[in-house]
Amino acid sequence: MTVGIDTHKVGFVGLGIMAKGMARNVMKAGYEVHGYTRTKSKAQDLLDEGVIWHDTVADLAETCGVVITMVGYPQDVEQVYYGEGGILAHAKPGSYLVDMTTSSPSIAQRIANDADQRGLHALDAPVSGGDVGAREGKLAIMCGGNQDDFDAVKPLFETMGKSIALLGPAGAGQHTKMVNQIVISGTILGVAEAIAYAKKAGLDTDAVLDVIGNGAAGGFQLNVLGRRIAHGDYAPGFYVHHFQKDMNIAAAEAEDFKLDLRALKLAIEQYERYVEQGGRESGTQGIYELYED
Amino acid sequence: MTVGIDTHKVGFVGLGIMAKGMARNVMKAGYEVHGYTRTKSKAQDLLDEGVIWHDTVADLAETCGVVITMVGYPQDVEQVYYGEGGILAHAKPGSYLVDMTTSSPSIAQRIANDADQRGLHALDAPVSGGDVGAREGKLAIMCGGNQDDFDAVKPLFETMGKSIALLGPAGAGQHTKMVNQIVISGTILGVAEAIAYAKKAGLDTDAVLDVIGNGAAGGFQLNVLGRRIAHGDYAPGFYVHHFQKDMNIAAAEAEDFKLDLRALKLAIEQYERYVEQGGRESGTQGIYELYED
Repeated sequence: MTVGIDTHKVGFVGLGIMAKGMARNVMKAGYEVHGYTRTKSKAQDLLDEGVIWHDTVADLAETCGVVITMVGYPQDVEQVYYGEGGILAHAKPGSYLVDMTTSSPSIAQRIANDADQRGLHALDAPVSGGDVGAREGKLAIMCGGNQDDFDAVKPLFETMGKSIALLGPAGAGQHTKMVNQIVISGTILGVAEAIAYAKKAGLDTDAVLDVIGNGAAGGFQLNVLGRRIAHGDYAPGFYVHHFQKDMNIAAAEAEDFKLDLRALKLAIEQYERYVEQGGRESGTQGIYELYED
Repeated sequence: MTVGIDTHKVGFVGLGIMAKGMARNVMKAGYEVHGYTRTKSKAQDLLDEGVIWHDTVADLAETCGVVITMVGYPQDVEQVYYGEGGILAHAKPGSYLVDMTTSSPSIAQRIANDADQRGLHALDAPVSGGDVGAREGKLAIMCGGNQDDFDAVKPLFETMGKSIALLGPAGAGQHTKMVNQIVISGTILGVAEAIAYAKKAGLDTDAVLDVIGNGAAGGFQLNVLGRRIAHGDYAPGFYVHHFQKDMNIAAAEAEDFKLDLRALKLAIEQYERYVEQGGRESGTQGIYELYED
């Protein structure tokens, strides 16, 4: 750890559903948590709980020893790192820059190179586990970067996740997250189609979920999101438009790899149809609405 | 329970991978286990362990108070119930007939009606949980039938499963199993495509599975079958051709319901392609081979 860098001061750039759960767990573990997000009013609950507000990303970056970014899209990541008043220009030498947004592997590699040239330590560390995992501190955290940087930030990760790994050099965290999202893209379609079938067959969906959730179909998507579908709850959790972003990154990478991932492509198509029907701001489980009469 | 019916004598018709695991657990619980399967030599291990052999289905049905069928296809179910020397003609009045094959809901309804007219008690009770679940007595058992019959057989189910439910009248067990298989059809495609991506991205697949298996992608398909894929193990488990049978039943039912289940249809297509490449006798996880160079 670099002398003069206080990794006890942790700044969050972006305070959406996921980041709020994470920031609360970091705070609970005794870190000093700083925050910036585009619309201050949306962070008011966290500020009331003790998060220290900054009016600009630059100000936050100049203050914190660890800067965590959890923003929406790859272009938002580029903006907060490279835009005017961005993190790379304002972070203190020796700081740790951790992008926990799900973003493209190539951006992660570029940030890591540019950070290195400025004496900064960058990691890509996207997460999985949804809003529940974020709230309960049980996220899976998938890291790319070098071992020393990972070791330095690991105690902080441990306040947010229960399954934390360094998967390889810069970009490997994002690639791993893409693997995760590809699994989910097929799975959530299966879950939505299965529940549509269950309702048509006249089954008690809750009873069905109770029994199949323990078998070969069981998993987070069925057991957590399937239950929400059964109860008509399409609130985000994980926004459809964020999932679309992830799937599009994965599809672009897969194309570079010359892989024909047909289930992924079908999921992209189905979510596009769902967005045309107004599903953009729903949780990913809302895809079930495509299958309703 | 009917007087004169010894539900302690349990006969298995069909002794494949799944049924063997189940029969062993029933035997372990102290039941007298009887068996019939088309090729006796394939059951030799069980006979050595104490299962009592019958040369015909009729002979087994005349002996046992509970007859469990676990055969391959709906036509096999029809054969053992309705064919010459079949169960319906030979079972003792008051016997319990439990079809644990995954078969069509309409056949289950027909058997239940015909059994009822003969003073027999029929249940449809397909399972999920794979060979591992069968071996460990941790299957999900999905029942259709009436409550009294279910209650009578439940102690026996409890030796084979840990998640056991009566979902509704005759056919409801099969419908529930279809729900289960529809979930799996999307999920296994997602898992296969994700691991194909992981390999192309140069990731350590085991390390990736360790971390994402605890997140929103986690579940039996990823954590158990994904691991087998990562190690190049395509042995059955659950045969591709049995899964095709299940998906085709589900697709036919869905068509009756006027549901457009696109992920299910894609899975049917992908498995057809895989069988053309020689995958018929592989385990379902072998679908990964479609995505390899």
